[in-house]
Amino acid sequence: MNTRDIFTDNHVGKLFGVKYPIIQAGMVWTSGAKLAVAVSNAGGLGIIGSGSMKPDLLRQQIRKAFSLTANPFGVNIPLLRGDSDDLVRVCLEEGIGIIFSSAGNPKKYTKTLKSEGCTVIHVVPAVKFGLKAQAAGCDAVVAEGFEAGGHNGLDMVTTMALIPQMVDALDIPVIAAGGIGDGRGMAAAFCLGAKGVQVGTRFAASQESSSHANYKKAVLESNDTSTILGLLKIGPARMIKNHFTEAVAKAESMGAAAEELRELLGSKRERLGIFEGDIVEGQVEAGQIAGLIKDIPSASDIVESMVQEYKNTLNRLKFQ
Amino acid sequence: MNTRDIFTDNHVGKLFGVKYPIIQAGMVWTSGAKLAVAVSNAGGLGIIGSGSMKPDLLRQQIRKAFSLTANPFGVNIPLLRGDSDDLVRVCLEEGIGIIFSSAGNPKKYTKTLKSEGCTVIHVVPAVKFGLKAQAAGCDAVVAEGFEAGGHNGLDMVTTMALIPQMVDALDIPVIAAGGIGDGRGMAAAFCLGAKGVQVGTRFAASQESSSHANYKKAVLESNDTSTILGLLKIGPARMIKNHFTEAVAKAESMGAAAEELRELLGSKRERLGIFEGDIVEGQVEAGQIAGLIKDIPSASDIVESMVQEYKNTLNRLKFQ
Repeated sequence: MNTRDIFTDNHVGKLFGVKYPIIQAGMVWTSGAKLAVAVSNAGGLGIIGSGSMKPDLLRQQIRKAFSLTANPFGVNIPLLRGDSDDLVRVCLEEGIGIIFSSAGNPKKYTKTLKSEGCTVIHVVPAVKFGLKAQAAGCDAVVAEGFEAGGHNGLDMVTTMALIPQMVDALDIPVIAAGGIGDGRGMAAAFCLGAKGVQVGTRFAASQESSSHANYKKAVLESNDTSTILGLLKIGPARMIKNHFTEAVAKAESMGAAAEELRELLGSKRERLGIFEGDIVEGQVEAGQIAGLIKDIPSASDIVESMVQEYKNTLNRLKFQ
Repeated sequence: MNTRDIFTDNHVGKLFGVKYPIIQAGMVWTSGAKLAVAVSNAGGLGIIGSGSMKPDLLRQQIRKAFSLTANPFGVNIPLLRGDSDDLVRVCLEEGIGIIFSSAGNPKKYTKTLKSEGCTVIHVVPAVKFGLKAQAAGCDAVVAEGFEAGGHNGLDMVTTMALIPQMVDALDIPVIAAGGIGDGRGMAAAFCLGAKGVQVGTRFAASQESSSHANYKKAVLESNDTSTILGLLKIGPARMIKNHFTEAVAKAESMGAAAEELRELLGSKRERLGIFEGDIVEGQVEAGQIAGLIKDIPSASDIVESMVQEYKNTLNRLKFQ
């Protein structure tokens, strides 16, 4: 059986030139070349997350990835970064063909990137932003639900509600993100009309993730209610609850202003939580699906088991 | 083809003695005998929502429903109601065999109801509450996601994240609620492991719903970001945004205490919004899937089209 045929005819694996429509989310302090290469070598699409990289480090990671895989991979660029021009330039100079942009206006680079031959995907939290990404010329969107880990929108629309509404509104393919941690979630996303899935937390808790062992342990110990979307007034992020998020929640419940939250946040909290492994005071980003995660497999095992479970799920429900 | 065979072998339609595992949510000012009977006559499970009824009115609605259908139907009882004893007594006196309880401790009545031969389902927003309902002897749970309309939990776990975690943790069947407005959502819920779906907003915007025409129009005009979960400190509810919810959101953002929110809420806001049709100042309860709804069909058309779309969705994804 040709594995491409188990998904819908026009799934996004074909757009990217990869076997499976499984995209590993670009994640700060988590998805460097090592994880991206592991996912791409397994037939998914690996993404280098530039959010925690200076331009020089990004260049180094891209070169490393090219040396370790002949398969396509991409780079995620948060558009609100002050040096996003430099990140984009590095990607073009190094021959990156697939760019996932997020957290900003998709009009900023899409035309330039398309004229350089890139495939451009923008991450959006609501239909109106999906329409803007489509108008800007993006090839697809990632529709990211409220349950997703890390940085998120203020719209709070969940994956289950968002995907069918986005699919009905847009002509370009929709990739579902948020709450997808196994093949059941992948099958559900395809039922809703998605043509691919972007998976974060599941890959963050893999062998090849650069996140700290304490971070991975915190994901393993999570349940369904272990995360919270906080920092709403200065940039919402979904995090595993800890001493830091309790302080944030308390301040937010009492009506703290943006400035107060910025002081509480300080600097380098994400690095502290994810890369240095301080799961008490750090910003430990993960999605609500963390509670489903019970092991730390290789990225390749994750890809293969998602595909197998996707098949099993649809087989279980098939009828004459 | 036997229509029962298109779902999983052990779907909850069999538990209730109805054809399809589609349950119409009990909804205040919306689901009296008229809507419940229409759903049950169409092969789903209709539910009389007692939340907005005095015991005498509930008795009248139950008798009306028995006079209009020979098919099973149920009653939803919010356990936090001061007169919940009376509501339960009416149900038992009138021969109700299916009780959906919500908003309270499932230990309160489950044993009594089971000893009277009732099938008892409890609505829960997180796995820990699902485990409590199972321990209390419930036959199944409704796992309700953050995106669901009306009264909701504080846990904010979404349907996509909640269902597989609930299914993995419990031995009793899980009915998915929140974000399900068509057959795509129903198929997605079954992929996640649900054995049935509870559908609110889609039935609230039906011909037989007792909600005001202005309410139904407000649902039709909604998009994906039209609702908000508010009143967090005094009992979270998801509502269509309007002048009232703006005042609530502003107060909550500034750290308003419970007492202040209670004053802002006043009394009879749900009646005002849903039954009297004041969509500016009323509490207009609906889920995030409201944006998907583009018509006001009969309940029977909703049931039939959900089943057809469920089949089409799985056919579209089937493979060798």
